[in-house]
Amino acid sequence: MKGFFHLISASEFTQLFARFTELDTETIPLPAALGRFVAHDITAPEALPPFSRSTMDGFAVRARDTFGCSESEPALLTVTGEIMMGRSGQSIALGPGQTARIWTGGELARQANAVLMLEYTSPLDDTTIEVFRAVAPGENVIQAGDDFRQGECVLRKGAQLRPQDLGVLTGLGITEATVFKRPVVGIISTGDELVEPGRKLAPGQIRDINTTTLTALVNEAGAIALPLGIIGDNFDQMLNTCRAAIDRPVDMLLLSGGSSVGKRDFTLAVFKELDQTDLLAHGVSIRPGKPTILARRNNCALFGLPGHAASAMVVFYLFVRPLLRRFCGSDHAGLQRIAATTGEQIPSAIGREEYVRVRLQQQDGGLLPVAYPVYGKSGLLKPLVASGGLLIVGRDSEGMEKGEQAEVIVFPGNEKSI
Amino acid sequence: MKGFFHLISASEFTQLFARFTELDTETIPLPAALGRFVAHDITAPEALPPFSRSTMDGFAVRARDTFGCSESEPALLTVTGEIMMGRSGQSIALGPGQTARIWTGGELARQANAVLMLEYTSPLDDTTIEVFRAVAPGENVIQAGDDFRQGECVLRKGAQLRPQDLGVLTGLGITEATVFKRPVVGIISTGDELVEPGRKLAPGQIRDINTTTLTALVNEAGAIALPLGIIGDNFDQMLNTCRAAIDRPVDMLLLSGGSSVGKRDFTLAVFKELDQTDLLAHGVSIRPGKPTILARRNNCALFGLPGHAASAMVVFYLFVRPLLRRFCGSDHAGLQRIAATTGEQIPSAIGREEYVRVRLQQQDGGLLPVAYPVYGKSGLLKPLVASGGLLIVGRDSEGMEKGEQAEVIVFPGNEKSI
Repeated sequence: MKGFFHLISASEFTQLFARFTELDTETIPLPAALGRFVAHDITAPEALPPFSRSTMDGFAVRARDTFGCSESEPALLTVTGEIMMGRSGQSIALGPGQTARIWTGGELARQANAVLMLEYTSPLDDTTIEVFRAVAPGENVIQAGDDFRQGECVLRKGAQLRPQDLGVLTGLGITEATVFKRPVVGIISTGDELVEPGRKLAPGQIRDINTTTLTALVNEAGAIALPLGIIGDNFDQMLNTCRAAIDRPVDMLLLSGGSSVGKRDFTLAVFKELDQTDLLAHGVSIRPGKPTILARRNNCALFGLPGHAASAMVVFYLFVRPLLRRFCGSDHAGLQRIAATTGEQIPSAIGREEYVRVRLQQQDGGLLPVAYPVYGKSGLLKPLVASGGLLIVGRDSEGMEKGEQAEVIVFPGNEKSI
Repeated sequence: MKGFFHLISASEFTQLFARFTELDTETIPLPAALGRFVAHDITAPEALPPFSRSTMDGFAVRARDTFGCSESEPALLTVTGEIMMGRSGQSIALGPGQTARIWTGGELARQANAVLMLEYTSPLDDTTIEVFRAVAPGENVIQAGDDFRQGECVLRKGAQLRPQDLGVLTGLGITEATVFKRPVVGIISTGDELVEPGRKLAPGQIRDINTTTLTALVNEAGAIALPLGIIGDNFDQMLNTCRAAIDRPVDMLLLSGGSSVGKRDFTLAVFKELDQTDLLAHGVSIRPGKPTILARRNNCALFGLPGHAASAMVVFYLFVRPLLRRFCGSDHAGLQRIAATTGEQIPSAIGREEYVRVRLQQQDGGLLPVAYPVYGKSGLLKPLVASGGLLIVGRDSEGMEKGEQAEVIVFPGNEKSI
């Protein structure tokens, strides 16, 4: 009447992701590429900056013409013109003792190799300035190619594009980025007791929470959520819905509820019934999250997730999110792991990795943040709202003493609070 | 020919934000509210869960009927029925010695106060089971209201909605959220030397980078970016463009370039020329970012930002982002600040707070991450791409020794790498 799990460890589970390959790529306008993952190494098509530029308002000079001058013995330079912004500075050539007015960002004149700050000069007459301080060659100048030489690698494959990365690509004249496609993730909730959000509850019914949380988690991870609704605990209905989802097609399917080994748990049987589908795992030695299923059909990942919203969320962060990022060329889960001190004793059980919801509290003076467990029965949601991360208690540990150092996975959005 | 700044400190600058008030609110469907800021405290309209539920597959029992039983002396219970998922368990009432089949998530039968796990029972005949282990009252049961009692506060005003928060609201039957409107941010780049991305450069011209980075930064902060293009260094043109932007209307205007005190810096004069506009600050004692301007016209924030992309980005994180969040009821900048150890000596100057771009490297064993400065002249972009955060050197410090402990602001998206 009740089956048994053959558990694998969390790291064994993660190793199964090697069976999946990266998604296809697409080329999109740069402004739309924030947060996307670069599909190939990007090299600089031209030098940045394209020409040598002043970093100050002042005078473009031949540095040697200023050597040895001082407040008491100013050098005299002849002003031959002004380098207009957005015009070529190279149209002006400096002879010995000559200078040209220049603005921040302007192109250096020919033969100039430094810029003198306005503050260290004084006009003597219409065409002559006094110079009170010497400048070294290269001073107040950014050389052509100082940022990137032509052909230099700017970003590596798998990099997730941040605002500053888009800025540099723009500066290099790049207007599009080739990135991995966003994974499309089908989301199905199962359970005879579930009703859609906003509908009135009859006795014994509860609202479907997993579609909401999984949709948000998928979106937050940069993938495309495709909510496919609620289905009852019925083998044929589940099988048909899974087949339809796979045909849409999706890159991943999240089926929550029914992933355990009870009489009413159909997910495993449904995945086994699908053609061309390999069952990769059923059961992970973690808590919460033990009844997790992973199957593969071509390159589509089929997850059976626990029905409890809190457990499903832990499995999402531990396994679903890293696989979504792997689809996009990233070998990093994209979650912050920090060291923290336990705020109280945390009991655990041998033989499974425990992910304890914790509230994180920053301490002054650079001490590690303190992690306080937020307890609650496994089906409860409140601890999830009250917590900022998951403290990991190892498989071979019976628990942690108060004040011990532990590793905590920080929930996205909670990094700021620690 | 060159003016002078009257600098205020970074914290004095931030205190000016008290002059601005929160934006209007709007009520939107819950799935669209991920990342948005809650406009009012949200209380539970009903209890969650709405009824007492089993957390196991097994048998609903009166706990006292199991007291004292064991493997050698099993209790015998009469099975009176099965509680169907999604149906009322209260339609079955247990008398002494009676039990009902129940599934995970099912509603307890009347008079039942605990659930017996299937594993600790054995069927004796069609209507009788043997029970090998006693259960305590409340065991394997979540009581009605265990998550939230009716009327209990679920989320506070200003909370930024995470996936788990949306899940809890869904569970409570809430389908919409009243949140602060997303701030609309006009973005203008100024400079005669600037050309739009993708256009071919003439000598002396460079591409406008700030529109790209500021647009991405604004979007990443959850606001709405309204890029308004490039204008030349021309007072009238800048004034007209600012007036048009304010009339759109926008909640904030970012004008980059021209914020300093040189002959070609018009931003200050333009802000002064706008009607009903208070100049709040010109110049902050930070580096980079000194030539920053803040003005207020009604509740619209007018920022003059430095033209260098790297400097503009620092000012964005330090000031623009916190004000955007203040508009949405949050008193937190939404950036992670961590403690780190300096990887090498970092010189600085007295009288200004220095924000040094650093590469962060995690250390094993829970030691603080190490921050290595990524140097480069102020106009360069590469250090920004290579760095993961900003190390703060205080106003009264001449620098930091290698191995000293420092505070680092982590760039959004880089939290994972430390």
